[in-house]
Amino acid sequence: MTRYQPEHFPEHAGSLLIEGVRTEQGQIDIAISAEGTIEAAGPGAGSDFRSGAEYRIDGTGCIALPGLVNCHTHAAMSLLRGYADDMPLQAWLGEKIWPLEARLTGSDVYWGTRLACLEMIRTGTTAFQDMYFFMEEAARAAGDAGVRAVLAYGFIDLFNDEKREQEIRATRRFVSHVRDLKNPLITAAVGPHAVYTVSPEGLRWLAEYSGEEEIGIHVHLSETEQEVADAVKAWGKRPPEILDKSGILTPRTVAAHCCWLDRGECTLLAGRGVSVAYNPASNMKLAVNRAMPYPWLREAGVNISLGSDGCSSNNNLDLFEEMKIGALLQKFAWNSPTLLPAGEMLAIATSGGARALGLGTGTITPGAPADLILVDRHAVCNTPLHSISSNMVYSCSGAAVLTTICNGRVLMLDRYIPGEEEVLAGASAAAADLVRRAGSA
Amino acid sequence: MTRYQPEHFPEHAGSLLIEGVRTEQGQIDIAISAEGTIEAAGPGAGSDFRSGAEYRIDGTGCIALPGLVNCHTHAAMSLLRGYADDMPLQAWLGEKIWPLEARLTGSDVYWGTRLACLEMIRTGTTAFQDMYFFMEEAARAAGDAGVRAVLAYGFIDLFNDEKREQEIRATRRFVSHVRDLKNPLITAAVGPHAVYTVSPEGLRWLAEYSGEEEIGIHVHLSETEQEVADAVKAWGKRPPEILDKSGILTPRTVAAHCCWLDRGECTLLAGRGVSVAYNPASNMKLAVNRAMPYPWLREAGVNISLGSDGCSSNNNLDLFEEMKIGALLQKFAWNSPTLLPAGEMLAIATSGGARALGLGTGTITPGAPADLILVDRHAVCNTPLHSISSNMVYSCSGAAVLTTICNGRVLMLDRYIPGEEEVLAGASAAAADLVRRAGSA
Repeated sequence: MTRYQPEHFPEHAGSLLIEGVRTEQGQIDIAISAEGTIEAAGPGAGSDFRSGAEYRIDGTGCIALPGLVNCHTHAAMSLLRGYADDMPLQAWLGEKIWPLEARLTGSDVYWGTRLACLEMIRTGTTAFQDMYFFMEEAARAAGDAGVRAVLAYGFIDLFNDEKREQEIRATRRFVSHVRDLKNPLITAAVGPHAVYTVSPEGLRWLAEYSGEEEIGIHVHLSETEQEVADAVKAWGKRPPEILDKSGILTPRTVAAHCCWLDRGECTLLAGRGVSVAYNPASNMKLAVNRAMPYPWLREAGVNISLGSDGCSSNNNLDLFEEMKIGALLQKFAWNSPTLLPAGEMLAIATSGGARALGLGTGTITPGAPADLILVDRHAVCNTPLHSISSNMVYSCSGAAVLTTICNGRVLMLDRYIPGEEEVLAGASAAAADLVRRAGSA
Repeated sequence: MTRYQPEHFPEHAGSLLIEGVRTEQGQIDIAISAEGTIEAAGPGAGSDFRSGAEYRIDGTGCIALPGLVNCHTHAAMSLLRGYADDMPLQAWLGEKIWPLEARLTGSDVYWGTRLACLEMIRTGTTAFQDMYFFMEEAARAAGDAGVRAVLAYGFIDLFNDEKREQEIRATRRFVSHVRDLKNPLITAAVGPHAVYTVSPEGLRWLAEYSGEEEIGIHVHLSETEQEVADAVKAWGKRPPEILDKSGILTPRTVAAHCCWLDRGECTLLAGRGVSVAYNPASNMKLAVNRAMPYPWLREAGVNISLGSDGCSSNNNLDLFEEMKIGALLQKFAWNSPTLLPAGEMLAIATSGGARALGLGTGTITPGAPADLILVDRHAVCNTPLHSISSNMVYSCSGAAVLTTICNGRVLMLDRYIPGEEEVLAGASAAAADLVRRAGSA
């Protein structure tokens, strides 16, 4: 089909004024500096900025939200979307995912991450936290796409000394690479994969190194019952205690999944200031048999964020859909229709994520980074509009997002994204070639 | 935003040729008669029809699927989308839903049903089964929208003789009204609400009447644990037995929800030829504490279809989203990542639904009604395209549907639907006025 292309797409950085947009607090204007910071946000706030703004967007048909934050994904796995599903975990990994991943190249990771960023921009996500490999290529992709990214090289030493030294070198190299980029939107984290793939020595090194570098820690935690049982069997300790003894649990840490935490472990995470990333679609699809214990985490005061996990266990990166599935799963799993109401879910996907990644408040307020999205208030999913938060969480998909702005740069305007066709073509070709190489091996 | 409008929208009925569209079986052409029947479907099938076809659609950028079938909804409740959520069931009904419903007018039902039909067309649903009131207005709305509908007046006698006589008259009146419409797309069913709202005498009358009229039966069954417990307490029987003793369980019957069936009841439903409508999002949101027992129903051989339930407990009508939630919920609830794979889920939403409503095979085959949709194969959710069924169920939302065809009539082309703005405006006004009336009461 012919795609609609706006006449005046703001191709370059410049001050921006969004006028008359709807929020939970009523109709406001949002003024954004050329440096990408929100300068003013409120009713009539535009009057001081109207003459000076380089670009203007009519927001009267839109609802403004802070950009959504995806705190746990493996972006380049978008190339594996639909490649293998509905299989037992070990067969799925051993027969399908790992053989393909063994053939991944840096170029594949570039195109897979570009595709993921395209999908995120299109569905209203302005920042993501990634863990994978060939991460220099992931950084290049995120940089080209213009989104905010916290990137970790997935550290897996399999309890082998030599492999650990390799992983340490790879981690140092990537962190130093990101520093050299000097792109304020891209930061590095360390990525201890999990207690069953990283030795205690590896965990300790990562904890110390991340402290020295003052960077985040991105880890899988207590995703499956087997992970917990195996840890107890091998080490006499459950996964959170193993991480804690190694110094991994810090206020800079995001722990993904956390389905099998017990109540005391929720308190431990709260005490350490760890953020949790909730991945409901993946947890359901892979049948981990337990939902993240939201009531215990909330009671303990843990900061909760949202993640999509990789595209091979979801199979998309639409956080609107993830919010709905997440709110529904808690109600179902805990037998409570009042648990995780829409307003809380929306806060988890915005301010919870921003806090987890150290990106500020995740709100549309003066001084905050201008990471925000405009949602079509005349879409069917917003008709009628009795409640913004309810419609955002329960009714809309990411397809209702019209405009996505990250650090003040317009990445999508009225659903038009410059260069989209090239990304789709590059990713399609990479995916086809990857499957061909795997098949002919 | 400016909406894209195709230059040549087929406004009138006419023969139609779709060329080069992708299906699970490869690339095909689909020829459709002016009367709305598929005449040919296969590779190169278009060559015989090219010169004669009144309209032609280039399908090369699309995936063709049978139209999705929504077997359980209360369409006009779209006006209540987001009006009340995250509440305990009784407070939600007693304080919010029922007071609003008490003020509903026929005009509200018309606009609510028009809005629902618009959403269904936009998300690839070509047929639905409804249960509500002011059903003459629902029939008018479905007729104006051009979708296929099986409509039932919701029969609720509350065990009161006088009320039962009123409901019998209302049911007869509506069935006769639908017959008089002589619209082949619109048929009537009877709608016994549930065992806790309809007397055994009412159930028996509905069973007999529907047999005489040869029309369907649309009923809620074993949605909650309380429904089962209350039935046992009041009647010494569980809901399926109550329905069966009244003659309600027939091959023309669609039973919605069925979460709390036991294994023997699945066998009973199979023996009676009943179809079940699975409503996963509603079941999760209202926290019914049990997923429809898919493995038992499948083992027993019951025909399974998909439903959205009403917009106040979902809160949308997007069956793509419903397919994903449905496939995920079974995996999670039964702790099996292989349960309800994508191909089965897609069949449930298409051929399962068509069988349930007596609409033929729900496949794209010669002789079948031309109810079909074209999905954007270049959308992000279809990049890459390793598996059509996986992408349809797990990755795409209804926003990937470009074109919707019902009975050979094009209802949406390249996402353009004639008259959409009027429906959105009419429904918005009706919803606002309804809330105002309820507030001032």
